Formats: sequence, structure tokens, C-alpha cells
Amino acid sequence: MKNVIKPTLLLDKKKVITNIERMVYNAGRNNVVLRPHFKTHQSKEIGRWFKEFGINKITVSSVDMAKYFAEDGWTDITIAFPFNILEINKLNKINKKTKFNLLVESPEVISFLSKELKREAGIFIKVDSGAHRTGLEPDNYEFLADLIDMTDVSKRLKFAGFLTHAGHTYSARGIDEIKKIHNQQLAVMQGIKKNLGCSRAFVYSIGDTPSCSTMTNFEGITEIRPGNFVLYDAMQIAIGSCNANQVAAVVACPVVAKHPERNEIVVYGGAIHFSKEAVKLSTMEIYGLPVKISSDGWNLPLNGSYVRALSQEHGIIKMSDEEFRKIKIGDIIGVIPAHSCLTVNLMRNYYTLEGEKIKTMN
Amino acid sequence: MKNVIKPTLLLDKKKVITNIERMVYNAGRNNVVLRPHFKTHQSKEIGRWFKEFGINKITVSSVDMAKYFAEDGWTDITIAFPFNILEINKLNKINKKTKFNLLVESPEVISFLSKELKREAGIFIKVDSGAHRTGLEPDNYEFLADLIDMTDVSKRLKFAGFLTHAGHTYSARGIDEIKKIHNQQLAVMQGIKKNLGCSRAFVYSIGDTPSCSTMTNFEGITEIRPGNFVLYDAMQIAIGSCNANQVAAVVACPVVAKHPERNEIVVYGGAIHFSKEAVKLSTMEIYGLPVKISSDGWNLPLNGSYVRALSQEHGIIKMSDEEFRKIKIGDIIGVIPAHSCLTVNLMRNYYTLEGEKIKTMN
Repeated sequence: MKNVIKPTLLLDKKKVITNIERMVYNAGRNNVVLRPHFKTHQSKEIGRWFKEFGINKITVSSVDMAKYFAEDGWTDITIAFPFNILEINKLNKINKKTKFNLLVESPEVISFLSKELKREAGIFIKVDSGAHRTGLEPDNYEFLADLIDMTDVSKRLKFAGFLTHAGHTYSARGIDEIKKIHNQQLAVMQGIKKNLGCSRAFVYSIGDTPSCSTMTNFEGITEIRPGNFVLYDAMQIAIGSCNANQVAAVVACPVVAKHPERNEIVVYGGAIHFSKEAVKLSTMEIYGLPVKISSDGWNLPLNGSYVRALSQEHGIIKMSDEEFRKIKIGDIIGVIPAHSCLTVNLMRNYYTLEGEKIKTMN
Repeated sequence: MKNVIKPTLLLDKKKVITNIERMVYNAGRNNVVLRPHFKTHQSKEIGRWFKEFGINKITVSSVDMAKYFAEDGWTDITIAFPFNILEINKLNKINKKTKFNLLVESPEVISFLSKELKREAGIFIKVDSGAHRTGLEPDNYEFLADLIDMTDVSKRLKFAGFLTHAGHTYSARGIDEIKKIHNQQLAVMQGIKKNLGCSRAFVYSIGDTPSCSTMTNFEGITEIRPGNFVLYDAMQIAIGSCNANQVAAVVACPVVAKHPERNEIVVYGGAIHFSKEAVKLSTMEIYGLPVKISSDGWNLPLNGSYVRALSQEHGIIKMSDEEFRKIKIGDIIGVIPAHSCLTVNLMRNYYTLEGEKIKTMN
């Protein structure tokens, strides 16, 4: 790590490839289409690594991100965010070779798209499977049927199916809790299929990384859209979606101060590098997990150590006696982010262990 | 707001100027030097607005930020972060016309700087006045005296004084609680002055925006370094540092979905625009305060409305019945960020109410 002098996002390409390989295997075994979400890595280069596994459909979270990946030859893109009607002109201008799926939750937006969209697009209805972030009530079948009818009469819109995101698996801890929430989303999708989809082949799409990483029953589901699994992070370790040694990206941070009276070190690496999401780990809220970095990368988090607090540039790391004694000012310590998607978005560039720079869309 | 189609950082220049004017007045009245922290606005352009008030000393939080502002003619810069020895070459290369003050907390760093620094620099010792982020124990006078001695024998280092940041005023609610914490930092600085500074004219520098915005007793303090006051935010409203109508920057967010069953709207505006800092407002944790935007700007937050949750791109806003009914999909709503420093860092550019684009260093 000779060239690291300030917070630097390191990428272990081998771990990324293994993470992709495993998710491709899971999807195949569970007989679902893998349409990975690219909002985690946000990089054309990493996107190409997926192509080698035969992936040809992707998910993104904004029109700008759709444009970025369309420019790199992706031709089947779901924008998994309630369509923002103010961006219609931007969408209309993207290369016509790319086929889009758009998310709707209201008659207003379907009616707007019928009039203003200058290309064909697949339409997904977003339903709420319990996360209560957004999405329609999943058992209001009459209303859902009305929206399908509205879509069917439009020339350019083609009804594609139903999409949900069980974001509440992020508060799960352990396989049993993930399963409980996963079964909720299965029930939601099976209910829709039974009531609305018997005579037509709709897509039933789920997206949360915890379920997609660990579950084996996908009855009624036809597509998965996980994103975070490509890197994983401290949140996913806490949930039980992955082991710590599967985490493929860490931030290398210079040590700038030591506080022996409380076994804490201060690193250059704060909320402008990690964002400020916390992970509940038993009774504590932590902001990251420290690891030792060598030329081969990193392994398990340092025993008894965690990021206790973040301010704009400061990271405060609590350590065990033993680990604290080993650290010197000017050393580099790795930090597994609480939430890798937000960290990548802030850091903008990765450096692989081989020293290659990998850009993102930012 | 005709041109806003995605999350956009709006700046009310008049409010910024008034905020600067008021802090300049406070500093004069309290007989302290104002060395504003530029990590909040991060913009050469906004920096120039300070020059018109005679400000010629500034504070920054990184070597990169020091370089950025030095390029714009600032010649007296304190880097208020424990000096990161790995960035010594970068610092040595910055234009020699700029005079720096650096922060130290250990003999190792003083000794490193004595050897490696290729220019003169002022040295501040960072002391902990109770925030327990970083800084030395303020009453370990013997140790502090040793560090001053170490600095005094170095040719290039000139001991400047003591610096603290009472970051724990951020958990204060109301003037009385701010005063209690402010008095702690006054006592810390007065203790140092009595024990170490009687015969020499040291700088005693404090920095938190709540104290600098509201307090009138600065006995023993010679310099203040507030930064956030230039924009303020929901956090500072909650603390009592400002009124809501002093907030000079909001994010304009498109409305993409409505959920009548829970009086919530979904906006395009999430953790990649605001970061993910929450503000405790009585028993709730909120992520921002919605305002109505007109061509004249914005005023008070919408009654009974707040940002309940943020995910990567989604903002979930809880509203009163009345406000909810008025909102349509495709409308633009303003959001006062929980923490403007982190929001500016993510948004990178401002647009003034007059439509002028203002860049930051990012």
C-alpha cells in the first residue's frame, strides 16, 4: 500500500468475480433470471465482468445511470425507481437500441408515459412487500388490474410485471429472520399471480441482497435484482448475507492520531468517504469494521475493533489492547464500510490490488 | 424552478451574505478573530464573498482543500485536522506564498514535521474539550509544555496556540445547553492560559457553530472557526443556533410517488444527495425539513412535515393532511438538509436563485 496517502477505495477483483459467480450459480439453481443492480458498483468496467457470465439484463436506479450503462452497450435496462416524469426528455434521447423497463405506481404516470414516451418500454408496477418505502398495496387487486388495463391500451407501453424490494431484510439478523421476511415477499407475489397473472406470463421480480444471497425457495419469483452482493459490506455481514472474507471493497485510511487513554485511533476517513450509515451490531451502532491490509488484500476484521464514530473527515476506531499497541501514526488501516453502495458513490474510483484504477460514473 | 428535473442544490445568496455579515458582527462584538471554516461551502466563489468583509484567514479540513483555496489567493490557512504525515510532499509543493497552521497531537508528528517540512508553519496543539473525538487531554499541562518545547527548538515550526472543537454542542438543544458546553471549552482554554500561556501570546481557537452563533462570553478565546453558519441546516435549527429562515441552501427534489394511506410522498433525493445523517427532533430522528420553493426562495419548513427516511435515491417525506393534498407527482419540493456540509460535498454544485451555477472543489 505504498501509494496510499489519503482515503482510497481498494477493490479485490478476485472476490468480486467469486461473488458474481456465486450469485449466477444461485440464480441458476433457483431457476430465476439474474438482472443485477448496478447502483452498487456504478462502473462500466465492473459491468463488463458480468458480461463474461452471460448477464445481459441489468437494473439501475436513475435515468443518468441508465444512460451511462446504455453507452457501454447494455440493451436491456430496468430503472428501478418510480419514474420521474421530469426526466422524460432525457430518457427519450437515449440510444434507441436500448430497451427500458420503467416503474410506475400511479395512473398519472402511466397516462403521462402513454403520451410523452417516444419509444417502447416495459412497465413494472412496484408493490410494497412490507418495507413501506414506496410501492402500492399488493392486495388491492382491483386497482392493480386497472393499471394493467391502462397500460395495455397504450401503444408504446407493454406491461411487464411486478417488482418489489423487501428492504426490511436489512433489519434482519440471521437466516431465520431473513427467511421470515423473504416468505412475506413470496406470499405477496404469489397472491398477485393467483389473482391477476394466471393467464399471462408476468415477471415477478425481487431485489434484496440478503434474500438473494441466502434463500433457496423462490416459488413464484422469476427474476432477482441484487446489487450489493458484488462488494458486500459490514451491514451484510451483520445481517448474515455473507462472511466477512467475501467483502470485496475496503477503504484504506491513514492513521493520524492515537488515544491510549481510550484505545482509540483517529483515521483520515470520515462521512465524506463512507457516508454516515450505521449498522446495528448487537447493542452498538458501528460505522465500519477495520481490517489489516497486505499486498494480498484483507481477511477477517480485527478482533474487537470497530468504527465508533464518523465526522466529516475523522473516523474514530475503537481497538483491543493488542491491536492498539501494534498501530503507529502514518500506518494504513482498511475499513469495511457500513454500506458499500454509498461509499463507492462518494469515493468515485477504485484501485485494484494490482494497482489498476477503475472509474465509476461519478 | 422550471429547470429542475433532478435533485438540485439551491443557494440563496442574500441569506449567505447575511449569515456572513452576522458572524463578522459577532466576532467583532466579542473581540475575537474570525477564521471561518470553508469545509462547509467548499467553493472558491463563496470564499470570495468573505473577502469583501475583510476576512483574510481561513480554516480547511484537508491538504487538498488547502491547495484548492491557496490557488485562489488565500495566504493564511489553518488545516484543522490532525496532520496526516503521508501528505507531507503534497503540502511542501503548495505555493510558498501561503502560510499554514498545522494541527498536532503527538511528539511523533512534531518530530516528523521538524525534519520533513520544507517551509515555515504555525503549530497548533489540538485539545479535547469534551467531544472525545480527538485532541489531547487539556489538563495534562506537563505534556503540553513538552510539546511546546519540542516545537520551539525546531527551525521551521512556530508554536501558534491551542485549538479545540466542542463538537458535543451538536447534541445540545437550546441556548442553555449550548452555554453549558461552551463554558466547558472556555474553562479548558482558560486553564491552559493560566498554566502555560501567561508569558506568551498564544492563539486560543474554538470552532463550533452553535457557540459561535449564540454565545456572548468569549473570555480567554482569541479566534473562532465556525463553518456551518454560512448555510446552516436542520441540525442547527434543532440545536437553536439559527432560525429556519436563515438556512441558505436547500435541495430541490422532484416528487415521484404519493402514498395517501400514510400521508407520505416519495421524492427523488436520497442518501447520495443528502448523506445519511439524522437529526434528533424531540423523540424522532429526521433526515431533513421540507419547504415550499418559489422564485424568491423559501421560508419556514412546511408545518408537520419531515423527511422520515432516506435510501440511496429515495427520500420519504411525511406530511400533514393539508400539505399532502396540495402536492402532485412531478412537483418540486425543497428539503433543508440535516447536515449541509455533507450535502454540499455530495451535490458538488450550487445554483443560485438567479440561476447562476457555483462550483465547489469536488
